[in-house]
Amino acid sequence: MSNVDRKRSRTRTRPPAAVTRLSLYLRQAELLQRKGLQFASSEQLAEPLGISDAQVRRDLATFGQFGLRGQGYKLDELIAGIRRVLGTDQRWPVALVGYGNLGRALVGYQGFRERGFEISAVFDSDPAKIGQVTSSGIVVEPAERISERTRQLGIRLGILAVPSSAAQQVTDQLVAGGVEGILNFAPTQLSLPPGVYCVSVDLTVELESLAFLLQWAKK
Amino acid sequence: MSNVDRKRSRTRTRPPAAVTRLSLYLRQAELLQRKGLQFASSEQLAEPLGISDAQVRRDLATFGQFGLRGQGYKLDELIAGIRRVLGTDQRWPVALVGYGNLGRALVGYQGFRERGFEISAVFDSDPAKIGQVTSSGIVVEPAERISERTRQLGIRLGILAVPSSAAQQVTDQLVAGGVEGILNFAPTQLSLPPGVYCVSVDLTVELESLAFLLQWAKK
Repeated sequence: MSNVDRKRSRTRTRPPAAVTRLSLYLRQAELLQRKGLQFASSEQLAEPLGISDAQVRRDLATFGQFGLRGQGYKLDELIAGIRRVLGTDQRWPVALVGYGNLGRALVGYQGFRERGFEISAVFDSDPAKIGQVTSSGIVVEPAERISERTRQLGIRLGILAVPSSAAQQVTDQLVAGGVEGILNFAPTQLSLPPGVYCVSVDLTVELESLAFLLQWAKK
Repeated sequence: MSNVDRKRSRTRTRPPAAVTRLSLYLRQAELLQRKGLQFASSEQLAEPLGISDAQVRRDLATFGQFGLRGQGYKLDELIAGIRRVLGTDQRWPVALVGYGNLGRALVGYQGFRERGFEISAVFDSDPAKIGQVTSSGIVVEPAERISERTRQLGIRLGILAVPSSAAQQVTDQLVAGGVEGILNFAPTQLSLPPGVYCVSVDLTVELESLAFLLQWAKK
């Protein structure tokens, strides 16, 4: 994976675009499988995603030997193969920091568990929230315990659902506890040591795409 | 915009990938501008995004005449130009349906307003929530009024923060009220009439990218 390099001391706002595309191919392959298909062409994988079929073939060839010329991709093998490449054929415990509205919504987000991500620890700094039990049965713990608990639980992934003002401090605590990958919902740049990755979620990107489509759609 | 075609009767899960990249270039350009730069090269725009600089040049050339050979891109012109292409140089009123944890989090999401998106109407079907006032001063209205109110307010964008079971019905009401673009947080496929676009948000895509990076990072 020579083109995946660790970023030094600054936020990597996005992972390599090809990796994101793999996730999208996975979803599309699953969708086609649910529709009863056993094989799919690169066109079938590409078209609903607004990606060219040449790009799909190139991406999938980069990551493994998934397809057979003339036959297309065998969906069960493709799905298993992409999961293996992504690392989601195993379970990933996740620490969530921030039990406000967003944190509560994320705890209830079914998609995480379905894809192997399990929120196994929840932290907040608000005394009123500490000790509350989430809908999934996790007791909210004080933010001071982040490093100790993530280390104890072997957690490598963290989700930041805290205000921008708290984001760096929480990040430092997660990193001290062994977390190497952070999904950041706070609209702020994080300073990270080498070997720690961050993806910042910016929901306005999606709204902007819709605005673009409406602006340019023929009336 | 010949390569942006309307999808008939099914969910477009993603807008054309180039449009999403424009949003990312915009953020990167703004970041460089905040750092005091006046010009930026395609490399400076590309590198933190994990995109090649050739791709950046190709994308920006597709959408307008932004750069000067040898000088790079003039950031203020690039930022204004991308906003114009995206349509976010104007204000977009947005209808939010679902005032649960996610809905509350979205109402409080500062990024929307900063980018021209204003949640101007909020709906829920729960009598206990109707009449509540959001942190931004909007009164939650009953879901039955979606079509009437979106039409009245000239709203073209809607956000679905409802359970999957309610997503299609709410979509139909939004569409009946003139909404043409839907940001969908419900993990379900929506059936849409021609001329209506949908972007589904899947937060596990980002976690999968992190899992990939951790799985393949050299120890």
